[in-house]
Amino acid sequence: MVGGTFDPLHDGHKRLLDRSFAIAGPDGHVVIGLTTDSFASRKIHPIRPFPVRNAELEQYIAQGNYATSWIIEPLNDRFGSAIVADFDAIVVSEETLPVAVEINKVRKENKKKKVDIHQISCVLAEDGRWISSTRIYRGEIDVHGHMMH
Amino acid sequence: MVGGTFDPLHDGHKRLLDRSFAIAGPDGHVVIGLTTDSFASRKIHPIRPFPVRNAELEQYIAQGNYATSWIIEPLNDRFGSAIVADFDAIVVSEETLPVAVEINKVRKENKKKKVDIHQISCVLAEDGRWISSTRIYRGEIDVHGHMMH
Repeated sequence: MVGGTFDPLHDGHKRLLDRSFAIAGPDGHVVIGLTTDSFASRKIHPIRPFPVRNAELEQYIAQGNYATSWIIEPLNDRFGSAIVADFDAIVVSEETLPVAVEINKVRKENKKKKVDIHQISCVLAEDGRWISSTRIYRGEIDVHGHMMH
Repeated sequence: MVGGTFDPLHDGHKRLLDRSFAIAGPDGHVVIGLTTDSFASRKIHPIRPFPVRNAELEQYIAQGNYATSWIIEPLNDRFGSAIVADFDAIVVSEETLPVAVEINKVRKENKKKKVDIHQISCVLAEDGRWISSTRIYRGEIDVHGHMMH
């Protein structure tokens, strides 16, 4: 399982997605939680509508030509189905590692087995700081982390 | 990179080691940090000497017949070479996840790239609690998590 707002889809997101498919393997299944517009509206910058983000995500995954099966699920809160579903591993960024730890705590309370956590280190922009949607929105960097000024 | 005291080598350790080799892959390299006797003596129960623990570890890894190359390094503190070495990922248990997060902080201060963190969920004993060396030492469970009473 992996989740995010993916707006715009940048190299950090791509690393997270690629690694999720690698970990699941050809016989595995990847569930991608995509934040709904109402949940994503907490962000400090405007977000493109769900169908637009969903289409960009689907297009990126499709071009990976994975044997792995996958599905995109709407994510209405930080946890989504991760606190109840039967699955093996959650893939997170440095920013969302605490959410994964929390998910395991809630799973234990729910009598569900804890899942493995894979924390991918963030992709750095040219200036050595993280690529993030906020920085892209501000016009500091592009989706590949190149400086815009 | 993975580390521990591995005394005695129980099913939780085996899961951690197996996963480290799976993540490194056949072309990869696994560095296993094994705590020295002086560092391991912080533990609340007696620890078998380094050569004994080293031999048990080597024997277990050898029977995995991995194509992956590997080496055992003495670990004199919580970090070992992980704060300076060039490597890609660290594999930890639920207990040692905070150490991995700390290692990445120190690496950043040392101008080293952060590494991916793989946190394997602990193996449970028959009673649903973690397998741990302390519990084995106390005679509660065996190395496979079977109850001893």
